[in-house]
Amino acid sequence: MERVCLVLGAGAGIGGSVGRRFAADGYYTVLCRRTDQEGLERMVAQIETEGGRAKGHILDATEPDVIENLIVQTERDVGPIDTVVFNLGAQIGNRSVADTSYKAFERCWRIATLSLFRLAHTIAPIMAERGIGNILVTSATAAIRGNAGQHAHAAAVGGRRMLCQSLNAELAPLGIHVAHILVDGAVDAPDTLGKLLGPEAFQKLREERGLEHDGLLLPEKIAETYIHLAQQHRSAWTHELDLRAFSDQAWWNS
Amino acid sequence: MERVCLVLGAGAGIGGSVGRRFAADGYYTVLCRRTDQEGLERMVAQIETEGGRAKGHILDATEPDVIENLIVQTERDVGPIDTVVFNLGAQIGNRSVADTSYKAFERCWRIATLSLFRLAHTIAPIMAERGIGNILVTSATAAIRGNAGQHAHAAAVGGRRMLCQSLNAELAPLGIHVAHILVDGAVDAPDTLGKLLGPEAFQKLREERGLEHDGLLLPEKIAETYIHLAQQHRSAWTHELDLRAFSDQAWWNS
Amino acid sequence: MERVCLVLGAGAGIGGSVGRRFAADGYYTVLCRRTDQEGLERMVAQIETEGGRAKGHILDATEPDVIENLIVQTERDVGPIDTVVFNLGAQIGNRSVADTSYKAFERCWRIATLSLFRLAHTIAPIMAERGIGNILVTSATAAIRGNAGQHAHAAAVGGRRMLCQSLNAELAPLGIHVAHILVDGAVDAPDTLGKLLGPEAFQKLREERGLEHDGLLLPEKIAETYIHLAQQHRSAWTHELDLRAFSDQAWWNS
Amino acid sequence: MERVCLVLGAGAGIGGSVGRRFAADGYYTVLCRRTDQEGLERMVAQIETEGGRAKGHILDATEPDVIENLIVQTERDVGPIDTVVFNLGAQIGNRSVADTSYKAFERCWRIATLSLFRLAHTIAPIMAERGIGNILVTSATAAIRGNAGQHAHAAAVGGRRMLCQSLNAELAPLGIHVAHILVDGAVDAPDTLGKLLGPEAFQKLREERGLEHDGLLLPEKIAETYIHLAQQHRSAWTHELDLRAFSDQAWWNS
Repeated sequence: MERVCLVLGAGAGIGGSVGRRFAADGYYTVLCRRTDQEGLERMVAQIETEGGRAKGHILDATEPDVIENLIVQTERDVGPIDTVVFNLGAQIGNRSVADTSYKAFERCWRIATLSLFRLAHTIAPIMAERGIGNILVTSATAAIRGNAGQHAHAAAVGGRRMLCQSLNAELAPLGIHVAHILVDGAVDAPDTLGKLLGPEAFQKLREERGLEHDGLLLPEKIAETYIHLAQQHRSAWTHELDLRAFSDQAWWNS
Repeated sequence: MERVCLVLGAGAGIGGSVGRRFAADGYYTVLCRRTDQEGLERMVAQIETEGGRAKGHILDATEPDVIENLIVQTERDVGPIDTVVFNLGAQIGNRSVADTSYKAFERCWRIATLSLFRLAHTIAPIMAERGIGNILVTSATAAIRGNAGQHAHAAAVGGRRMLCQSLNAELAPLGIHVAHILVDGAVDAPDTLGKLLGPEAFQKLREERGLEHDGLLLPEKIAETYIHLAQQHRSAWTHELDLRAFSDQAWWNS
Repeated sequence: MERVCLVLGAGAGIGGSVGRRFAADGYYTVLCRRTDQEGLERMVAQIETEGGRAKGHILDATEPDVIENLIVQTERDVGPIDTVVFNLGAQIGNRSVADTSYKAFERCWRIATLSLFRLAHTIAPIMAERGIGNILVTSATAAIRGNAGQHAHAAAVGGRRMLCQSLNAELAPLGIHVAHILVDGAVDAPDTLGKLLGPEAFQKLREERGLEHDGLLLPEKIAETYIHLAQQHRSAWTHELDLRAFSDQAWWNS
Repeated sequence: MERVCLVLGAGAGIGGSVGRRFAADGYYTVLCRRTDQEGLERMVAQIETEGGRAKGHILDATEPDVIENLIVQTERDVGPIDTVVFNLGAQIGNRSVADTSYKAFERCWRIATLSLFRLAHTIAPIMAERGIGNILVTSATAAIRGNAGQHAHAAAVGGRRMLCQSLNAELAPLGIHVAHILVDGAVDAPDTLGKLLGPEAFQKLREERGLEHDGLLLPEKIAETYIHLAQQHRSAWTHELDLRAFSDQAWWNS
């Protein structure tokens, strides 16, 4: 049977690498991102070159009906969705309370929290019918501790973590595996960290900590844990785990 | 100097009792709730009978500008706000994912999370100017673990908890004490639990566990901890604590 | 009725200040510490000068039967123990795994963990008989996150925290309030921090952060929260809270 | 190069299954357990039948020098230890404070906590020299929340969890991966759960929840996650994860 992996937030980082990893394992992979049609096509082409199957969509998941229609169309046109990788972040950099607008606060929540709820609301009945499915949520340490300047981000992803636990409590017995993945550290990802830092600072960071040194989380290595989670036997599921580079301090260390 | 205590969510439960306790200690208390003008007037009258000073407002904190105007007017007409008690909950009872509408999911967040952000956004600069202030947030165990059926509630208050940590990180050094109070158990509160259960089931619970038995959290006893938090010396502030009846299991126990 | 407060670890810091605070509230206070007879006598004299009643014991709580006999004798000779303040720490400074001897690792556990178990084992039946009692445990952030160099300390106090939760689950319904107090930061305490840092570094720290600035936790302010915990009504008990100076970062912040 | 996997606590459950899984992947596996020479030999024989290499030791890890000598001899006689699976538990069933002897309390700590410290103390310098190694620690929810009757167990494994975090902080940058694995639920393991429940109750549980239903954690499925952890790339290591059967409630749910 066709197995589909749907990736929301398929940039050149975790999302794209996870999609490629699932494609290498035989999943038909549907890659979605908000911008960069060209980058998206490059990813699809790379997967096809490697013998996999994929397609891409440029879409804004926060728009009404977009997630809902995507799921319906994918199920109808591509095949049964086995795994959704929810990789939408809401990191907007550090801003004081005063500098965080109501609009920014709400937008973070719409992207990171409400979108996941809409996704689960739409796909849970479909997966429950089949008694199988995975919802893998990329998250950050802001989901377990707030920091100065992280008001909007922490509120959004902290709410999402509790949503994941709530979804897990209802959906796991129906055969749907919800996993919350705490990525604790800088990821070697040009489309997110690269844009946040700017090209020069990002390159400097890569040279200092990444590349030979494995001091940045490598997306293609992260992807190994995503596929492991999707393939865990239902008698031994992981709901939450952390990921960080060996040389990095855990968030709880001082 | 006049010290004002502003209570958002001043029903016959934690909010009202905390307001009354602060009034007994000499704070001018401003009680706000969404409905029940009569109940509100009764509270104000009771405080005045006991020698305290208070006033009340019926308002919907989720409406645009309501929280913002309330703070400005209170500061102008009553006096400097020393303590805000944020007592807005978002418990809507247990609902499956399918039975939780997008509207309900969003409404919980608007009440419990966005309202606190708007409050902090408005009052933090005022309190920071004075180098003193307390923001006491009533919360629930849904802020630290999701349960089946609690999708909207857990997402809202889980996000709020991370917001509180983020606010604390920025505001504590400015002299503003943000405390997150985990009320872990049934409160002897007719306006919240009473309405959720209905009058008969609530009375039955009171007879079985409450009254003589102290098996429900008593709001006037909870209030003692709120005023303790507001009066902790800044060299020894508590950011988070739990409260439960002695005979009740902690949420983490099985 | 006579109410006794028994303090284990009554140095010039949290232990001594808490004892003095309880004495000021009318408790007969029994102060115990391992060394410094002179310092102990000074504390007792100070309490008596302030109109309180107290006595002191020099003892090593890790020795066989010492805690057990202390409780029996105090109950017999002084009066019913209402509150025990367990203030024995096991901080030995940072040491690598290689530099932490088996003996040091075991000693930390004997002081911080086993002593509390022995205490609870002895006093719980006595307090349960009366249906009332408090066991207040001073702890540290090493109880909730391990750090490099903290192998022995974190293992000891982390085990103690789980012991406190286990004790609470069994003893709270019997009327015994077990509270775990996370002191997150440097305390202005010559007998502990002072000895760890040495007199010069300690004085420097006091001048930079303490004194006028309230940047160190002041023991006499901490004591206010201990007595609040001991006097919480049983319908609204706190099991765990944190304490830190307003200007200090919470342990979870970076 | 020869890669050795050393299992402490290699019963017919997690320990044995993990050993067998590593052997299937080419590791030379050294299985250690306290009793049941015959069972141990059966395991070794099974591994050899499947084309793997293994040997077994009957030993009591709490005895002086036993862990230390085991490591030295294994390194000398078998090869470099790549992965240690620390699978010693300290579950003694539920006992009230009064029914938990000092001896039992100490024994749990010697097995679960001190043994891991001794192991780490001995093997960390060896692994650090090579810049590679895994220490995988099987744990239980008692490591993150105490329950009534779990005084000895929770104190031991709670301390161990903080030890793991402390070890991770020091050892991860040296290339040693310390992982803490929270097994949250009943494992289909005759040597542990089977003995705790007795053969009849265990068989009943297996029929009701296990076998066809995957309602017990299956050790050979758990083993897949252990080997995944051991083979994660150092740029993306997991320090902690949970494992439970899909149909089971997470420990934090009510």
